[in-house]
Amino acid sequence: MIQHPAFAVEPWAVREHTLHLDVLAQTESVFALSNGHIGLRGNLDEGEPHGQPGTYLNSVYELRPLPYAEAGYGYPESGQTVVNVTNGKLIRLMVDDEPFDVRYGTLHEHERVLDLRAGTLTRRAHWSSPTGTEVRVTSTRLVSFTHRAVAAIHYEVEPVGRPCGVVVQSELVANETVAYETGDPRAAAVLESPLVLEENTPAKEGVAIMVHSTRVSRLRVAAAMCHDIDGPEGTRVDADGAHDVSRVTIATRLKPGQKLRLVKFFSYGWSAKRSRPAMHDQVVAALAAARLAGWEGLLAEQRRFLEEFWAGADVELDGDPEVQQAVRFGLFHLVQASARLENRPIPGKGLTGSGYDGHAFWDTEMFVLPVLTYTYPRAAADALAWRQSILPKAQKRATQLGFSGAAFPWRTINGEECSGYWPAGTAAFHINADIADAVVRYVDATKDTSFERSTGLPLLAATARLWCALGHHDAQGRYRIDGVTGPDEYSAVADDNVYTNLMAEQNLREAAEAASRHFELAQRLGITLDEIATWRDAAASMYVPYDERLGVHCQSEGFTRHATWDFEGTRPEQYPLLLHFPYFDLYRKQVVKQADLVLALHLRGGAFTPEEKLRDFAYYEAITVRDSSLSACTQAVMAAEVGALDLAHAYLGEAALMDLADLEHNTMDGVHMASLAGAWIALVCGFGGMRAGGGHICFAPKLPPGITRLAFRLRYRGRLLRVGVTPASTTYRLLSGPPMTLTHHGHRFSIDGRPVTHPTVKVSPPEVSIRQPPGREPAPRQIP
Amino acid sequence: MIQHPAFAVEPWAVREHTLHLDVLAQTESVFALSNGHIGLRGNLDEGEPHGQPGTYLNSVYELRPLPYAEAGYGYPESGQTVVNVTNGKLIRLMVDDEPFDVRYGTLHEHERVLDLRAGTLTRRAHWSSPTGTEVRVTSTRLVSFTHRAVAAIHYEVEPVGRPCGVVVQSELVANETVAYETGDPRAAAVLESPLVLEENTPAKEGVAIMVHSTRVSRLRVAAAMCHDIDGPEGTRVDADGAHDVSRVTIATRLKPGQKLRLVKFFSYGWSAKRSRPAMHDQVVAALAAARLAGWEGLLAEQRRFLEEFWAGADVELDGDPEVQQAVRFGLFHLVQASARLENRPIPGKGLTGSGYDGHAFWDTEMFVLPVLTYTYPRAAADALAWRQSILPKAQKRATQLGFSGAAFPWRTINGEECSGYWPAGTAAFHINADIADAVVRYVDATKDTSFERSTGLPLLAATARLWCALGHHDAQGRYRIDGVTGPDEYSAVADDNVYTNLMAEQNLREAAEAASRHFELAQRLGITLDEIATWRDAAASMYVPYDERLGVHCQSEGFTRHATWDFEGTRPEQYPLLLHFPYFDLYRKQVVKQADLVLALHLRGGAFTPEEKLRDFAYYEAITVRDSSLSACTQAVMAAEVGALDLAHAYLGEAALMDLADLEHNTMDGVHMASLAGAWIALVCGFGGMRAGGGHICFAPKLPPGITRLAFRLRYRGRLLRVGVTPASTTYRLLSGPPMTLTHHGHRFSIDGRPVTHPTVKVSPPEVSIRQPPGREPAPRQIP
Repeated sequence: MIQHPAFAVEPWAVREHTLHLDVLAQTESVFALSNGHIGLRGNLDEGEPHGQPGTYLNSVYELRPLPYAEAGYGYPESGQTVVNVTNGKLIRLMVDDEPFDVRYGTLHEHERVLDLRAGTLTRRAHWSSPTGTEVRVTSTRLVSFTHRAVAAIHYEVEPVGRPCGVVVQSELVANETVAYETGDPRAAAVLESPLVLEENTPAKEGVAIMVHSTRVSRLRVAAAMCHDIDGPEGTRVDADGAHDVSRVTIATRLKPGQKLRLVKFFSYGWSAKRSRPAMHDQVVAALAAARLAGWEGLLAEQRRFLEEFWAGADVELDGDPEVQQAVRFGLFHLVQASARLENRPIPGKGLTGSGYDGHAFWDTEMFVLPVLTYTYPRAAADALAWRQSILPKAQKRATQLGFSGAAFPWRTINGEECSGYWPAGTAAFHINADIADAVVRYVDATKDTSFERSTGLPLLAATARLWCALGHHDAQGRYRIDGVTGPDEYSAVADDNVYTNLMAEQNLREAAEAASRHFELAQRLGITLDEIATWRDAAASMYVPYDERLGVHCQSEGFTRHATWDFEGTRPEQYPLLLHFPYFDLYRKQVVKQADLVLALHLRGGAFTPEEKLRDFAYYEAITVRDSSLSACTQAVMAAEVGALDLAHAYLGEAALMDLADLEHNTMDGVHMASLAGAWIALVCGFGGMRAGGGHICFAPKLPPGITRLAFRLRYRGRLLRVGVTPASTTYRLLSGPPMTLTHHGHRFSIDGRPVTHPTVKVSPPEVSIRQPPGREPAPRQIP
Repeated sequence: MIQHPAFAVEPWAVREHTLHLDVLAQTESVFALSNGHIGLRGNLDEGEPHGQPGTYLNSVYELRPLPYAEAGYGYPESGQTVVNVTNGKLIRLMVDDEPFDVRYGTLHEHERVLDLRAGTLTRRAHWSSPTGTEVRVTSTRLVSFTHRAVAAIHYEVEPVGRPCGVVVQSELVANETVAYETGDPRAAAVLESPLVLEENTPAKEGVAIMVHSTRVSRLRVAAAMCHDIDGPEGTRVDADGAHDVSRVTIATRLKPGQKLRLVKFFSYGWSAKRSRPAMHDQVVAALAAARLAGWEGLLAEQRRFLEEFWAGADVELDGDPEVQQAVRFGLFHLVQASARLENRPIPGKGLTGSGYDGHAFWDTEMFVLPVLTYTYPRAAADALAWRQSILPKAQKRATQLGFSGAAFPWRTINGEECSGYWPAGTAAFHINADIADAVVRYVDATKDTSFERSTGLPLLAATARLWCALGHHDAQGRYRIDGVTGPDEYSAVADDNVYTNLMAEQNLREAAEAASRHFELAQRLGITLDEIATWRDAAASMYVPYDERLGVHCQSEGFTRHATWDFEGTRPEQYPLLLHFPYFDLYRKQVVKQADLVLALHLRGGAFTPEEKLRDFAYYEAITVRDSSLSACTQAVMAAEVGALDLAHAYLGEAALMDLADLEHNTMDGVHMASLAGAWIALVCGFGGMRAGGGHICFAPKLPPGITRLAFRLRYRGRLLRVGVTPASTTYRLLSGPPMTLTHHGHRFSIDGRPVTHPTVKVSPPEVSIRQPPGREPAPRQIP
């Protein structure tokens, strides 16, 4: 766990004042840079010490066999694991015969700053070698948002007090030893030497190139580097390369006041199809464009890109500076994970670590895309275009399982299912309705008809077909979906999971509407009027189990009559429960890992009355242990909706600080994209009360004690809106776009260029007592 | 599949007239000899060709890691696999430079006979070598029932027509290459060279000894051999041994009319504790005792042993000679699997093959022990004593899973859980109630109070405690057991499986009664009056789900409202379904692999009215596909009870011929002990209508058309009974033991030394139509 304040609380930066080697792996994730195509963990320039060296290219993976003690039909035979590709960020330094290594000598000062507006990671070190030579090293690193294939480092070294000899070795290194191992199955399978060398061309002054392929998945990866070097006269530059290393060596002597400056540009490309010469040329070309822009040019473009992003995405919060920082940190990682996706997935950890083997899950559609849809919609479209690109694989998978339509993989990189435990993987068919929900949300928020036709309808239709194959009408004519797994991973293979049924209902209904809207296109997809009617009918008779005795919805049929988990008898160190109890026992008892029914309360709010929401929320709060990072934000939203504002604030804090405070002790494997997105969701959908759909956007702002101001921006149907909330009033501003109508606490009003102000509603606390399992209460926010 | 008639239909033998190499592996299982301690597959003397070489010692296994694509708490880390130990049955023959190998030269005649009264396998071959030398080879093999550690072979070779040179090599060979591989996960994991040599002492005339240990499980295995050789003058005997082979070579020249005769005695021992010298001496001593008896002595003892067995176990059947043969074949394999158990398990395949990795399952308690209890009760006690011996491991497992009491393993050799897929393994907790049922049945049938005190009560109490941990009372006060798996492997992790609940109910009730009967002893086991009351209360409020709308019991809560499997759309080659459809889809639909609710109808018949039994049986018949060998016999019993006698006869045929006709295409991995036991169950409990309990035994005989006579013997509370049924009348005879009362079709009567005759009841066919899924009807018995 990262001891707070490991990072200084600042509104626009994450700053580490001193280097704590015990949390090095965690800070590598926090300080990771990415543009959605390239990901560089925040490893120290000199490579060592490290928690986990990491350089990733979106969708570069290796295959590995998935073993089973007892095999079964339809089990995936191979898994995909993200590969640590060629490391281009390595710059070693030798000072008078002593390698610069913070574990030796004396580190007088060390600072790292992630600048959320500049899009850079800056490091400043002041170090004395064991023999007393003193230097200052400064580096600034970026992964370009504007040059998809390019990263760059500005590196500077200067002597302090007396002259010294300096040798800098700037490298490309493949097949680094990844010694990192946690024993936690959620961490990546370690792959040894996954890359096979195809080309290693060193270059003294021009461009050095290395090309490799992965052994089994046969993906070709190219990396190139070149340097601008500025040193005193007599500085000598050499280059060499062999095996998996390419090296440029710069040797010089520096007097106090003199500096060795170096800009390293490096570029990446990968392909499953293109030849070695083609890949060679591709990375060289990327470098040429970067060099044309130059270091200062790249920096300026980076800042402009982020200015535009923040203009549509920023959230301001007065009264809780930690969360203020965290929500921006989260949005920054979201844009990093998605800026240059171009039809590739957003993995659960982005490109910040090898956690979850680099796989993408339903989190992307249900937590990350809702934020991007309203703040950076192009990225949401990109992520869904990736889903469309794997539609043929999802259709093949459905056929293998004996169903029609498409069965999207529970976890994947390349589109093929990698889940090796079907009750908590393949059976979680809700992912298909989640993808449909993301499509519906994006189309509603953008009116992007071209997307709806090219991507939306094919996805909606293929998933609707799956629900027709998965469900059946019972003797009473109710449509039921048996034996599936909902979001809560402490239940599995249950009948009529409310979340799944309600999401499938929406999926079927929206598919029917979209197919009717674009019927000619639908016909080309083989959709008939009869099929559309089938979708509509199934949606109309969807069954939602309800426990009359308790007056609450059942997470799934029969859930509320199961035994309740023995929370009193569970010791604090027995959490997360999955590491201390068998699935068998978790599945059959009332204990919830993460919001499931409560997620339905949020996303399908119209299907519940306010009284039902309150009773349901209170009931599930008492049995939800939050052993998942995909829970606190949803609990924050519903706590806010039912008026439990302090509780909502506490959950907001948990979602927002998941990685900055390493709450689940696994930030070392990468940051939690969905939880980071959850900070925005908790603020905007929770305290802002934002809900959108059917071409309309509503707000129901309310602030917890201690928060004196909340302001957020969002994009909806060509408008840029700003909503500013204080305890007294809420002011809506249409920053750009044509006039529109909005809803404030159920009251509709029009807005044009002039701000509109309404009183912020005072909320009374819920009349029902809301409690969590003992010891599982979220930490209350302590506002200074 | 073995094409019938591969074996001649004879009442007391299984005879193969010609050698079919394509079914060699199957016949090796059928012709396997065993005494429950040693198992020899029916491999040809000369070792090759073979389907699967196999020599097994009960409970000699090797450990292997169990891999998981995604690990979970409580998953077993290593599995156990039966080891092919030192092969002592190998006798190679060289005839004038040509090895005797049936694949070469001309096989004029070849016969193998398994004699069910002699307990021997005899082989006669008449063969010409490729160069035209003609010989007759005769061998008779036995695994002694009276000398636990000993097997012996009488081997004879004689020239035909012209003199020839003969070299016989009699060997002990360890680490044979097991090239056999089916790709079927149910077959054994192949273990290469599992044995590490510790001693290899060859001996020309005395005893040759080999001692090995298993690599990981560290079990020491010793084998020894010696020979009585009778050849013409000039016969030369040599011995050598190196690495994993020990060899005695006998060279001679034979004229027509001369024979080389050889009796090979070989013995085995194994231990986890005893030293190499101790094991060495142990196998030598076993040989000395065998040699003292001599070949003829062993033969005579073998026959005497079986005479006594058949006196209490034989079943006679007129009108269906195939089934007559099969039921005796089945009983023979049952006594082979259990005669010399001595606190070891009876694996699913006995010691006849490596199928299911040599593991023991619930089949033993629920199918094999019910037969042994009434025919050869000592073996049933032995098998339950093994369960008691692993009670500490079962208690440890329960603790690991978070429960009290004992959780017996779903599949095991050494008592530790080996199931690598918990929904169809660990979750099938009914095995604990099944063990309790076997205890109750044995104690009822024998009044063995000493067993009840030493073994019965500890097993009943430990399993009752588990049910208290697994169940809970719901708001209506009903006792419910959620999230477990019943016998049907096409459903899993369901609530209130009727079979499980009713068997648990009996377990709890019988534990309470036994603890009350032996309260002082119970106190020493830590059982209090309060605990006994808890057991009684849970039993009294056990919930049994019933579907009022359909008027049938639900296999488990909600089962009958699930979608029904698309039987019409399932092609014949898609059976067994588990190889062509995902568990996901099987589990959530109404499709039954094997009797589950119907097994409850049989075993807990008192919990159902006759009308319920008929409706339930008809309902479940229509959805039961019998993709398991553990189904037909139970369906036979219930078909007979509801009056569907032709159907019962068809199921009897299927259960009885499972291995002789290789109905499931896996007899090559070993014979199906439970299905073989099922033939007896179908005849005695089905057509004989036998039910026992509470110190009383009842019959309700009825015969299907074509069966003109059924007679069976059984043991109950010190009596030996014979029941003879014809279509007209049933005659009861008390062959030994004090007078008793019996029930014939509900009518109680007394019996002493004089036979009692009652009319056999004429049965009218059931008024409800009974149908199976299309294509899954059992083959009707065609009576000549």
